[in-house]
Amino acid sequence: MMDLKAYLAERSSLVNDFLKKRIGVGAISPVDEAMAYSALAGGKRLRPILLMAAADAVGGKGTDFLCVASALEMIHTYSLIHDDLPEMDNDDYRRGRLTNHKVFGQAMAVLAGDGLLTQAFEVMTEQQGVAPDTMLEIIHLIARCAGPEGMVGGQALDIGAENKHLTPAEMKQLHEAKTGALFIASIRSGAILGGGSKEEINGLTKFAALFGLAFQITDDILDVEGDARIMGKNAGMDEKMNKSTYVSLYSLEKAKEMALDTLNEAEEVLRPFGEKAEPLLEIAKHLYNRKK
Amino acid sequence: MMDLKAYLAERSSLVNDFLKKRIGVGAISPVDEAMAYSALAGGKRLRPILLMAAADAVGGKGTDFLCVASALEMIHTYSLIHDDLPEMDNDDYRRGRLTNHKVFGQAMAVLAGDGLLTQAFEVMTEQQGVAPDTMLEIIHLIARCAGPEGMVGGQALDIGAENKHLTPAEMKQLHEAKTGALFIASIRSGAILGGGSKEEINGLTKFAALFGLAFQITDDILDVEGDARIMGKNAGMDEKMNKSTYVSLYSLEKAKEMALDTLNEAEEVLRPFGEKAEPLLEIAKHLYNRKK
Repeated sequence: MMDLKAYLAERSSLVNDFLKKRIGVGAISPVDEAMAYSALAGGKRLRPILLMAAADAVGGKGTDFLCVASALEMIHTYSLIHDDLPEMDNDDYRRGRLTNHKVFGQAMAVLAGDGLLTQAFEVMTEQQGVAPDTMLEIIHLIARCAGPEGMVGGQALDIGAENKHLTPAEMKQLHEAKTGALFIASIRSGAILGGGSKEEINGLTKFAALFGLAFQITDDILDVEGDARIMGKNAGMDEKMNKSTYVSLYSLEKAKEMALDTLNEAEEVLRPFGEKAEPLLEIAKHLYNRKK
Repeated sequence: MMDLKAYLAERSSLVNDFLKKRIGVGAISPVDEAMAYSALAGGKRLRPILLMAAADAVGGKGTDFLCVASALEMIHTYSLIHDDLPEMDNDDYRRGRLTNHKVFGQAMAVLAGDGLLTQAFEVMTEQQGVAPDTMLEIIHLIARCAGPEGMVGGQALDIGAENKHLTPAEMKQLHEAKTGALFIASIRSGAILGGGSKEEINGLTKFAALFGLAFQITDDILDVEGDARIMGKNAGMDEKMNKSTYVSLYSLEKAKEMALDTLNEAEEVLRPFGEKAEPLLEIAKHLYNRKK
């Protein structure tokens, strides 16, 4: 069995190194410092790692696609910065550190997010070793998943969802957009970049959807059961904000059952990929068992 | 001599039609309504028109590049939405209407900006009739000019510039980034898309820099001399915010002289392009004479 901890450490350090080198190049203003503060705050680097693992799963070389992989982390980071703003979730801590606007002020935090989002697309176009038409397909996919049909749309649904009882279908749509779409962008991009067949690309896209679902359910469970000191952020926020979650809609026990069922289904979807997909599966299991 | 009014009306209506059709497709949340509110608020469509005019000036067909042209307007619009936020310039009116956050709330305005910026890149990849490697070059150029080395960086400099006396060099850098870079992105993109030679592309890029400078100086003059009712926004804001401008640093008279000199230099740069560049020149003159 693979050493997942070593694998994650190695892959995330590739992303960290890339971001450390790339952010701030040609800086003309303090916004690069604000961008770097959040981008180098030591996240899990989950989306880039998933992209690389998906490329590996179809027989490609995942680490060849560090530009696109890191761009996804930049998009994820921008979304966290804007999400933490006082007018949004109003969070003071993230990844155990003060949030961007607490350190740099609200205006600079808006711009740091804008800068990361914009530069993510710049970084994507710097990817070498990919046919230009494939690269355009990837940019289109990522923009679509990150935009109003995906992540941004999900955030907008989330704003309207406070103090409102969602139906299970509404909540599913919200999460598929808010967090699921970027997982799909990551894993599907990896499958395409790695040279997967149409069937493989669709198979991994299905895995991505299940992965996103399991991730979200576990997130909702952690918000109830998690330890703020371990998570580096406050627990119990969903209840405080009166948000519909898998726990509030189905009960804690049922949510745990759903998470496990989803994980098992994800494992089934990966079966045809054999050993090459072991990292994807181990990451999914690891996230399911996570404490933060 | 060309009928500039008819030309601008025709070209801006192409952009309006495109945006009207494109924004809101596949909408899952109210953010698309907020995006459309600002994107369809009847701006000058200056950046898309400049892109198309630049393509025409090198012998291409400008109207073939409506996707990229409109994407630039989406980026411009997002920057206005975020710029108007309470934590930034805190403006209540824009283009004679309530600003985005006054209508949709601050959180939705942040997301509307994010959505427009993200979807702009999606729309760029939908451009037909351009070689994929050229399209990647264009996306790279636009992202760079709109990001922390360009517009976002300029905005960040602007935040730090309030209540601070800038040197002429500092103010020049601020404006080159904040407004100049996107003009360069527009005009240079048009020159590339239109199939211009390296010399033509560089010539029009020089014109773009001069255009941006003349635009900014005129903007500073209008803020002093303009009529709020005609402009659709408050005058005297620069003085109120204690910002360094071409007027405050050089005097009103000197600023007017600089604007005219810059316009004349821009005309010189366009001379080798002959009649094909007439629209670019007429737009520059029109902007110089504008009242809003």
